[in-house]
Amino acid sequence: MRLSMNERIWTAALAVIGDEILSGRTQDKNVAQLASWLNVQGIRLAEVRIVPDKTEAIVEAVNILRARNDYLFTTGGIGPTHDDITVDAIAAALGVGVVYHPEALAVLDAYYATRGGLTEPRKRMARVPDGAGLIENRMSGAPGIHVENIYVMAGVPHITAGMLDALTGTLEGGRPVVAGTIGCWVAESEIADLLGATERAFPGVSIGSYPFFRDGRTGANFVVRATDAVLVDTCLAELNARLEALGHAVVAGGI
Amino acid sequence: MRLSMNERIWTAALAVIGDEILSGRTQDKNVAQLASWLNVQGIRLAEVRIVPDKTEAIVEAVNILRARNDYLFTTGGIGPTHDDITVDAIAAALGVGVVYHPEALAVLDAYYATRGGLTEPRKRMARVPDGAGLIENRMSGAPGIHVENIYVMAGVPHITAGMLDALTGTLEGGRPVVAGTIGCWVAESEIADLLGATERAFPGVSIGSYPFFRDGRTGANFVVRATDAVLVDTCLAELNARLEALGHAVVAGGI
Repeated sequence: MRLSMNERIWTAALAVIGDEILSGRTQDKNVAQLASWLNVQGIRLAEVRIVPDKTEAIVEAVNILRARNDYLFTTGGIGPTHDDITVDAIAAALGVGVVYHPEALAVLDAYYATRGGLTEPRKRMARVPDGAGLIENRMSGAPGIHVENIYVMAGVPHITAGMLDALTGTLEGGRPVVAGTIGCWVAESEIADLLGATERAFPGVSIGSYPFFRDGRTGANFVVRATDAVLVDTCLAELNARLEALGHAVVAGGI
Repeated sequence: MRLSMNERIWTAALAVIGDEILSGRTQDKNVAQLASWLNVQGIRLAEVRIVPDKTEAIVEAVNILRARNDYLFTTGGIGPTHDDITVDAIAAALGVGVVYHPEALAVLDAYYATRGGLTEPRKRMARVPDGAGLIENRMSGAPGIHVENIYVMAGVPHITAGMLDALTGTLEGGRPVVAGTIGCWVAESEIADLLGATERAFPGVSIGSYPFFRDGRTGANFVVRATDAVLVDTCLAELNARLEALGHAVVAGGI
């Protein structure tokens, strides 16, 4: 993504924590979900790391990602079981201790009042790195955690979604990226030069080319991205005209 | 994952290359696909990074991941368009030039013979880091690339799948991880201590706990993993017995 001069770009990274993703057992949904949510906040997802349930792997990822991005999000590993080590690993990365958060204890106490009570394993979910605040969990008991520029969220996608909902509008960002799409039943190799030339003609715009194969035919969608909506529209119109000049029918909105 | 002593563990990393994943436009499928395939080869997916279409980001990921894993796989960015920069970035990471691979040119020449001929943009797909070999593409024209311990594959999942199929049995690995699953309609917080104690009782085994919410009820699946199938079965039977002793009905195979 190229940029207008002097435009402040806000970036975030995501650390997905969980053996279940790396084993192939679970298909991650949080990368796409967070990316879309971030864009509305005017923040770009700049990089993602998927790491196992191992303290040293989490610490390494957390420390580099939080240092070089405005925000770091994590998903996974904040439940009550032995394989939930995210809180301890993040505290280790920050060099702080782990404490019980009084408000989290109160939230869990209320949540479990009709569900068998706040047992010791459940209390584990009130443990936070020292100095942390909470992210409201609108779906179940255990809250997320906010410490420095790190946002620690659940791994179960609908719970993550609720936490993102609670965070909406609270993070400083810049202009969202605007995207427009057109599609063509064409092999991208046929129009590769045209695409590159069109991108070069519109500084500040990036054009992504995403080929697919459907019903035995080859096609591609072209996504024009920029922070300036007028620039996106102008570039899309030009790309459309250039494709049609070569005899390719263009499908608005993509195929 | 804990291990039997002296057991050689083979690991792989994956670098997913593509703005379309980081923008949320495209839901990645290759992490789960590669993880499952690797396990059959006796290789563990140890870490994943998702990086943008930027040379420096790709170079950084490639150099650290290839150094600390037996294998590095990449997906994405090997097409004919301006945003396909994977080959050049990997060559830069390795400090070698980029050359046309004669066999790749022949493959593409044959593939495009009935599709408009081998144009310059299409020739781009025969460019490889100097010294590289090819990975057969059973789905379309452009082959994948093998250089040192790096396997460069397409981003479109069914093409990636064909390349993995072509690589099956060619990579040295160890013993695959065997996994067994049971499920319970229980909040994992109720049996967290039981899970941890059971894992500790079976060195070499890891137990993952994966909660879910369905039909208004809370449940969890427990995945027991080890390289020794007998150990997995023994641990599963013990976990089953301990859960039932607490009055929880267990669903074999998971819920």
